[in-house]
Amino acid sequence: MSQARSGAPGRRGRRPGAPDTRAAILGAARARFAEHGYARTSVRSIAADAGVDAALVHHYFGTKHDLFVAALELPIDPTGVIVPAVAGGIDGAAERLLTAFLGVWDDPELQPSLLGVVRGILEPEGSALIREGFLPAIILPIADALGLDQPERRMPFVASQIFGLIVGRYVLELEPLASLPAEDVVAAVAPTIQRYFEMPLP
Amino acid sequence: MSQARSGAPGRRGRRPGAPDTRAAILGAARARFAEHGYARTSVRSIAADAGVDAALVHHYFGTKHDLFVAALELPIDPTGVIVPAVAGGIDGAAERLLTAFLGVWDDPELQPSLLGVVRGILEPEGSALIREGFLPAIILPIADALGLDQPERRMPFVASQIFGLIVGRYVLELEPLASLPAEDVVAAVAPTIQRYFEMPLP
Repeated sequence: MSQARSGAPGRRGRRPGAPDTRAAILGAARARFAEHGYARTSVRSIAADAGVDAALVHHYFGTKHDLFVAALELPIDPTGVIVPAVAGGIDGAAERLLTAFLGVWDDPELQPSLLGVVRGILEPEGSALIREGFLPAIILPIADALGLDQPERRMPFVASQIFGLIVGRYVLELEPLASLPAEDVVAAVAPTIQRYFEMPLP
Repeated sequence: MSQARSGAPGRRGRRPGAPDTRAAILGAARARFAEHGYARTSVRSIAADAGVDAALVHHYFGTKHDLFVAALELPIDPTGVIVPAVAGGIDGAAERLLTAFLGVWDDPELQPSLLGVVRGILEPEGSALIREGFLPAIILPIADALGLDQPERRMPFVASQIFGLIVGRYVLELEPLASLPAEDVVAAVAPTIQRYFEMPLP
């Protein structure tokens, strides 16, 4: 993970030393989320680890969800893409989700940061962050929004096809997958995601 | 890529200094395959880059295909798994392929080496090796064996689901995907691969 948000305009604290404080909070958040998982981690425990007051964490980062997104160093909050994509219900949900998802990844301003995150998740701490955080905080809410049964068993299959698409199109740049128009990728891959949404589970 | 085959039992050359020669050949092979692709790389050009005779390359590594597998540092030759899996024809091909594939990946003796390869492919040289070599040398022959049309357009989708399965089950260890019996994973994912084998392409 290579991009730090601590220097982003408008996100600085007001007193000297604040960037160090922000970095300490993000470091504590990454370690907590990775070790204990998203659900079992409190903002209070992160604040204690960083040696600051919980109010300061909220002041800098907002909610626990916002802090998690900052800890993952994603350049955008994925729920902003996901929620509208699934708001239309189960029919066509995979197509809308994938269209929104490719719109973000195909954006040349966002792609370098996103690639940094992907490379980071193959490191052990990054893997734990995804396993303990990304799935419960970001992927499982898709299933909730769509009213799917057994989301914990179902959504890892969805995640597997999405990860594979990222690796093939953006990391390995396999042709012609890398340069196909987004709509052709959606046409080929959306039925996979839709089936994972709807397939019966044992 | 962390595993070197140069020290493997029974693979040593006969004279002092041979391990260095093997390493030089593998380094030259990786650079050539990554830069020029599998099809446009000759054993002779690799030998020249390594400052040895082509016959020595064949002596150490066998065919160009064998040398490519050695350069990827795969612990097994994947064609040994793939060819029997697709030999039964298109009906059920994805199920047989995925069963064979998971059999290899679930083998605790092979998995650490395979994970090393996966981590390596996210580095730029590794990405090029996969893009220029793995697809033409290993994935496209699956399409040929099955008689699929437009294999270059079709097989990257197959690769995307396979990569994603590797990342989800073995790298991120997303539960329950990581601990599901192989047959449950095959039941869920084989229809995806089978559809990619058979879907009409624009």
